[in-house]
Amino acid sequence: MEIERKFKVITTPILLEQYEKKEIEQAYLCTDPVIRIRKSNEEYYMTYKSIQDITLSNIALCCQEVELPLTEEAYLHLKKKIDGNIITKTRYLIPIAGGYIAELDIFHGHLKGLCFTEVEFSNEKEAAAFIPPEWFGEDVSFDKRFKNNYLTFINSYTELGIN
Amino acid sequence: MEIERKFKVITTPILLEQYEKKEIEQAYLCTDPVIRIRKSNEEYYMTYKSIQDITLSNIALCCQEVELPLTEEAYLHLKKKIDGNIITKTRYLIPIAGGYIAELDIFHGHLKGLCFTEVEFSNEKEAAAFIPPEWFGEDVSFDKRFKNNYLTFINSYTELGIN
Repeated sequence: MEIERKFKVITTPILLEQYEKKEIEQAYLCTDPVIRIRKSNEEYYMTYKSIQDITLSNIALCCQEVELPLTEEAYLHLKKKIDGNIITKTRYLIPIAGGYIAELDIFHGHLKGLCFTEVEFSNEKEAAAFIPPEWFGEDVSFDKRFKNNYLTFINSYTELGIN
Repeated sequence: MEIERKFKVITTPILLEQYEKKEIEQAYLCTDPVIRIRKSNEEYYMTYKSIQDITLSNIALCCQEVELPLTEEAYLHLKKKIDGNIITKTRYLIPIAGGYIAELDIFHGHLKGLCFTEVEFSNEKEAAAFIPPEWFGEDVSFDKRFKNNYLTFINSYTELGIN
């Protein structure tokens, strides 16, 4: 079960390069359920997320998620079968107050200009009590324009209509 | 963890239609790891089997297996992305001595003529101790020609060279 909140970013922390980062490339074989393939640095995965089992609260988004390892060869094979565009982004893992990690995603390629951050929680109570750092902007947890399986079908950042 | 043994069939049990059966259609998106989509009666699944984690013993074949539900729509969507041929078969679930179930697969379509049976065990000791019923033939647990992810690339039963 994944419980997370997603936020726009007002300003990114300075000296980003001091943080652990992942160069991510991902794409989709299916959107309901979500079947995603991802390269994260030199690791390869297929992730299944059940849309059917989503429990909507007012605070956070929950879904069943299963992550399965792929070989590089399998990843490249499945990449020929994707539905939309390949998403590329750099993910910075930034420790914040409360022992949480802000996953800051800075998009590249056709989504250059897009940037948001996510925080994962162990339960909904924690998610509700979370006080975002000052550099976090609007909560967009329920805005589909910030979902990667929506973004894969978008051709440019401007097409998103995010201000 | 799946632990199973596979056998040729000398004669199928009489009155097959008395047993529970599943009409199965399946195909593959990837062969290593195995990513299979399957329709079983009116249920739809994607199954991931890790080849990397296979533990080979002399008796049974073991592999990590994860089964994930699909909607009919997702199944039909993924069916456009398969690598080989679609396999269709009727699977009869036949109770046998020792409390086991023989899964008897009778193939149709391009594999018409092919037939084998599988038994699943809870551990390797059980698999080794198993005494097959008289209607079971040769143990083909390690013969790749009886693996579905091999059969999907075969164009006819005769091409298999099974006597």
